[in-house]
Amino acid sequence: MNDILPRPEPLDRSMAAELQQVIDTKTKPPGSLGRLESLGLQIGLIQRTLRPRIERPAILVFAGDHGIAAEGVSPFPQEVTVQMVANFIAGGAAINALSKAAGMTLEVVDAGVASASPGAAGFVDAAIRRGGTRNFAHEPAMTRDEVLQAIERGAARVRFHAALGTNVIGFGEMGIANTSAAACLMSRICCVEIDACVGRGTGLDDAGLNHKRGVLAAALAKHAASTDPIETLATFGGFEIAMIVGAFLAAAEARMTILVDGFIVTSALLVAHALNPAVLDYCVFAHASDETGHRRMLEHLNAAPLLQLGLRLGEGTGAALALPLLRAAVAFINEMASFESAGVSDKAV
Amino acid sequence: MNDILPRPEPLDRSMAAELQQVIDTKTKPPGSLGRLESLGLQIGLIQRTLRPRIERPAILVFAGDHGIAAEGVSPFPQEVTVQMVANFIAGGAAINALSKAAGMTLEVVDAGVASASPGAAGFVDAAIRRGGTRNFAHEPAMTRDEVLQAIERGAARVRFHAALGTNVIGFGEMGIANTSAAACLMSRICCVEIDACVGRGTGLDDAGLNHKRGVLAAALAKHAASTDPIETLATFGGFEIAMIVGAFLAAAEARMTILVDGFIVTSALLVAHALNPAVLDYCVFAHASDETGHRRMLEHLNAAPLLQLGLRLGEGTGAALALPLLRAAVAFINEMASFESAGVSDKAV
Repeated sequence: MNDILPRPEPLDRSMAAELQQVIDTKTKPPGSLGRLESLGLQIGLIQRTLRPRIERPAILVFAGDHGIAAEGVSPFPQEVTVQMVANFIAGGAAINALSKAAGMTLEVVDAGVASASPGAAGFVDAAIRRGGTRNFAHEPAMTRDEVLQAIERGAARVRFHAALGTNVIGFGEMGIANTSAAACLMSRICCVEIDACVGRGTGLDDAGLNHKRGVLAAALAKHAASTDPIETLATFGGFEIAMIVGAFLAAAEARMTILVDGFIVTSALLVAHALNPAVLDYCVFAHASDETGHRRMLEHLNAAPLLQLGLRLGEGTGAALALPLLRAAVAFINEMASFESAGVSDKAV
Repeated sequence: MNDILPRPEPLDRSMAAELQQVIDTKTKPPGSLGRLESLGLQIGLIQRTLRPRIERPAILVFAGDHGIAAEGVSPFPQEVTVQMVANFIAGGAAINALSKAAGMTLEVVDAGVASASPGAAGFVDAAIRRGGTRNFAHEPAMTRDEVLQAIERGAARVRFHAALGTNVIGFGEMGIANTSAAACLMSRICCVEIDACVGRGTGLDDAGLNHKRGVLAAALAKHAASTDPIETLATFGGFEIAMIVGAFLAAAEARMTILVDGFIVTSALLVAHALNPAVLDYCVFAHASDETGHRRMLEHLNAAPLLQLGLRLGEGTGAALALPLLRAAVAFINEMASFESAGVSDKAV
């Protein structure tokens, strides 16, 4: 079955010394641009060039509904998912404002929302199952076939943008109750007790948080653990999460730089990483979310996020906020003079 | 003498409740945009509007030479200051690349560099004293008159940009040995022992760091402490630092949003704050520098920096990197729909 999965290759590091030399001879004390320097190196290695570029950066927001919402694990009703898809299409959501500010193309993908949305520019109906996933309190959220189909469709969206020239991509998500799905994926893949994975999502109070913990602990107890990431994803995941798994693998295969957003998107990366660890070489971790569990996910992936701004919204908002740092990283590599070319002394007194 | 200083007024908070209401009814869980929300509120209050804008954002880089460089406190020779000014003018420095990437106007001001630079667009010769400051190991770096003149000239540069419509401004600096000046200002104003204020600057080794500590400890012992910020600035400061003090006060007086860069620029803010605490209301702290002492300066000012990227370059690079976050903050306020306008449910289940 893994034949259908995109197959990213480990990063080719053969240009590392040459790129580092370019970075170190710029007119600044060595290392003084901090994280921008390692970021520039990574993007150069991914693109296999001494002159990396950010081309047609894009955010793909995948939306899906979750059967587990019926258990009252979110303070918002399930209808909010389709309402927010309409808001994305109308341009009124946070990711619309932030992707526009960052100069990023935005695409919204219906991965399986309970109600269909009307067609619109920048909107793709790729729904696997109208109505969303099944309630994993009682049965697996998706079948294996549904998961593989979702992975394929997510990968196809990335290939579409790759063909248009996109070389930096970020993923976002919308789906009432999807922090519940992500928390269960995290618990299983990272081998962390569920209470450390469960957060307030869009804003649960203490009673709601306790209820959510109870629902998810019971659901985890119901389904036997599996070492197969696809089966774990089918049991607890969502259509939007499965599409993002495929999107991660396809983006790494296409040697894109991938901006990793918050808790839900990182849960998809946990699955993608379990399927093919090479995907990590192409990832830039945009931010540390305030959602409980995200920092521990980042530790599991040995990831150092660029931003820590107390975000807990999703939609790809953290990815959009981090893009300007990537622009800055390629700008310094391409535009700064070297000590030699500028006639600046790099010698100690 | 304080009659000549610009006089910022404390922030008018009368619109705070109305602005907060706008922020809280956007289509997102309340508070879920984290720091962007407090940033948007601050910019709205500064501009006294529910629709804040970023207009003609600018970085002003002030360059000056320091007599203390003769004591061997920097690994780079003093000539690098004028060489870097030439690099700024030619467009080859980090701040050129990063301000361009952020869409910011860049101006370079000679505040007192040892050698004059030829005229060029975006370059202003405002030098107070050709040759830079005196060596504060032996005598005060500047006279009181020189300091007041520098403050006035720094303020004048800000007013020039205010007249052109700039409402967001950041300051940068260049000056071999200016971390020594900043460390002494910090030690005196924050009442912190000098060793906690002294860092490696552009890259001192351990022996160099010990030497720098010894030189600065002896210099501090030579000059009696003063409660007058102008006198402290005259004793240890630099022409570029004094101009930035004036620039801070004038920018706050003009109700600009001010992006605070790293160690040297924050040392100027310590002086400006001691002269008029209201200046802080207009400040956004761009980043926490890796230079020893910067975090403690930030604590002294009770400041929470936006970015922590291991930068230690100066030039205003941190300010340029933070500007996109300000653009994002005003974008979400101006462009996002409200729950009501978007027809999205904000009710709990």
